Amino acid sequence: MLCKVTAMALGRDYRGQDCSLARTLEVVGERWTLLVLRDCLFGVRRFSDLHQRLDISRAMLATRLATLVEEGLLLRRPYRSGREEYLPTEQALALWPSIYALMQWGERYRGGEHGHRRLFRHVSCPAQSADPADAQIEPDGRCPACGVRPGPGELEMRPGPGYDPTVGDDEVTRALRAPHRLLAPLPSPAETTRVS
Amino acid sequence: MLCKVTAMALGRDYRGQDCSLARTLEVVGERWTLLVLRDCLFGVRRFSDLHQRLDISRAMLATRLATLVEEGLLLRRPYRSGREEYLPTEQALALWPSIYALMQWGERYRGGEHGHRRLFRHVSCPAQSADPADAQIEPDGRCPACGVRPGPGELEMRPGPGYDPTVGDDEVTRALRAPHRLLAPLPSPAETTRVS
Repeated sequence: MLCKVTAMALGRDYRGQDCSLARTLEVVGERWTLLVLRDCLFGVRRFSDLHQRLDISRAMLATRLATLVEEGLLLRRPYRSGREEYLPTEQALALWPSIYALMQWGERYRGGEHGHRRLFRHVSCPAQSADPADAQIEPDGRCPACGVRPGPGELEMRPGPGYDPTVGDDEVTRALRAPHRLLAPLPSPAETTRVS
Repeated sequence: MLCKVTAMALGRDYRGQDCSLARTLEVVGERWTLLVLRDCLFGVRRFSDLHQRLDISRAMLATRLATLVEEGLLLRRPYRSGREEYLPTEQALALWPSIYALMQWGERYRGGEHGHRRLFRHVSCPAQSADPADAQIEPDGRCPACGVRPGPGELEMRPGPGYDPTVGDDEVTRALRAPHRLLAPLPSPAETTRVS
């Protein structure tokens, strides 16, 4: 397996770059990889659910997932006979600040006129007041109520005023429109209807 | 120009993704783009200097730079008759937290055994003590001495114990090995030797 990782890494290597940013991009810089990880952190775990959400071929999704498993960012495990799901590991959780920071840049510089597409609330904030907006995390990831930068497992996501409900008509995307705690598994409507 | 931007955006669009992360990756998700921006924030401004640092073709570098100018992340301006340089705009500076977070992930999970490749110090820290290590910013970007998260213009970069001086033998990379304030232009040895 080590040989395979090395061989893959050579193909997408940033040669001559002694930089930790280059090393990171070798792992997560491929097209669609950060969006796959985003969805895994949102709680999407199953191949067919990821495939519904992301408009890519099954082959490309399978390649991206295999790389992420091999690199140690996702854990593949059976959840029922013949069925597997993908769970983010510590390495994937540790990418949350990067993903959130990139998302905030998009909210600020490539957002629509109606404001944020998504809002994240520190649900387990110890300083919670009656107004949930008090624990809505800042662009720098800090909770304004308690001052910490919560990990993804402590956040609840919901659509903001800039969210466009006409984009993405699949069941998984619709399920993610309800307030949803990150990492928590989604109900998987695809599971009951798909063919093996 | 607007038409051109739209046409380019369509080609690398993440269709069906109403997400600010997808919008950001449309701008900075192409291979090499984040490394180009990293170098621009480090103070590399000239085409030939970027070309020395990055092991890519002149055509690909020119394409990446043209997109970044068109998207408003870099400003192209003449610095001498017939010579142009690229300066990061506010939009590029605002990507620093994302670039730094991705870099820190690489330091932590794809670093060598000798520790950090690069260290960043809050040079303008108001709480500076005698020991410069007190103002070395944390993995979350905060200055431990004063508690703020400094922008790139307030940081000095120097090689850390994990930096490998045998990687990258060009003059620009060598110049970046000295302690160097981000955004400040490098002396450009390439300038005196290159042919137009």
